[in-house]
Amino acid sequence: MFKNNYSSKLLEDAVESLSTLPGIGRKSALRLALNFLKEDEANVERFAESIVKFRKEIKYCPICNMITDDGTCPVCDDEKRDSSIVCVVESQRDVLSIENTGEYNGLYHVLGGIISPIDGIGPSDLTIDKLVERVANGGINEIVMALSTSMEGETTAFYLYRKLAQYDVKISTIARGVGFGDDLEYTDELTLGKSIVNRQPFAI
Amino acid sequence: MFKNNYSSKLLEDAVESLSTLPGIGRKSALRLALNFLKEDEANVERFAESIVKFRKEIKYCPICNMITDDGTCPVCDDEKRDSSIVCVVESQRDVLSIENTGEYNGLYHVLGGIISPIDGIGPSDLTIDKLVERVANGGINEIVMALSTSMEGETTAFYLYRKLAQYDVKISTIARGVGFGDDLEYTDELTLGKSIVNRQPFAI
Repeated sequence: MFKNNYSSKLLEDAVESLSTLPGIGRKSALRLALNFLKEDEANVERFAESIVKFRKEIKYCPICNMITDDGTCPVCDDEKRDSSIVCVVESQRDVLSIENTGEYNGLYHVLGGIISPIDGIGPSDLTIDKLVERVANGGINEIVMALSTSMEGETTAFYLYRKLAQYDVKISTIARGVGFGDDLEYTDELTLGKSIVNRQPFAI
Repeated sequence: MFKNNYSSKLLEDAVESLSTLPGIGRKSALRLALNFLKEDEANVERFAESIVKFRKEIKYCPICNMITDDGTCPVCDDEKRDSSIVCVVESQRDVLSIENTGEYNGLYHVLGGIISPIDGIGPSDLTIDKLVERVANGGINEIVMALSTSMEGETTAFYLYRKLAQYDVKISTIARGVGFGDDLEYTDELTLGKSIVNRQPFAI
């Protein structure tokens, strides 16, 4: 057998690097590494460059903390969006998910995480002060919280609620209920219960 | 919605690059890209470098075509291995898989693919001539074919068989049968049939 199971130190290093990616184990990493051998050297260089460039040059929107190439982000820049509503999310990925639905026309505020004492993340590590400042500056009528229902998400929502209660702003949260296509049978009791309590007028 | 669903051209380029990886769709690519933002810039650079370095500096063993850092590969170099047996495989990955079993002590020959007219891969695109040369040079008593049982694998095996028949060398193929832990019920008829025809003396 090879030392460390590989015939080459270069291969070993590449597998080592690739297996640091989330969701990529050593088997997948090996597959990815060997796949690079089939590609032109120039393609592999371009691949590596695009990642380094992305990491180095990416900026964060000074208003909402979304990632952007330069200056404020396309959402904050867009005058057709309703700047009186701000949706608070944990990560930049959540913004992309909500944008993909095409159902939201307000602005965002990316917290950059949620309050999690166990991971050493407190309110000051997030962009909470910036959000409070945005609300204090006026012009915002509603804050929509789109945080996870985990303990940490609930804690964060409650913390924000307390911080924002002094301002004249409506605070709402995204609807919880049975997902489209989900079987009632397999829906957890809390979700199903909430979906009955918060039932909506029937609409065709 | 964002143009192309992303708020940033840099993000879009990174996702584009990452989704060229085998088995990585656009959703996973986005996840990987955003994950790089959590890493130090230096770590991301090291990651990219290890891949480019691997692609640029990797060599192929002049004897067996296995990947290696320099010169002949560790298997061909190892004097404790039985150089009278050569196992023929399609790819470098197959060598790693067989080495991991710890059950094989001979040498290898990596074809670099299999004969596949539909993909435009003919015998001359593979290292078949080199294998024939190795056999012609003498010292090899047995060739073990470890190719896939696909049409292309069978074609390649048959082609090799014809090329090698003129030499005084035993040609064998890896055992086919019901895998350990597999249910007979779910084993295909061809495999189950072969496993009965090629039954082995019972051993405790």
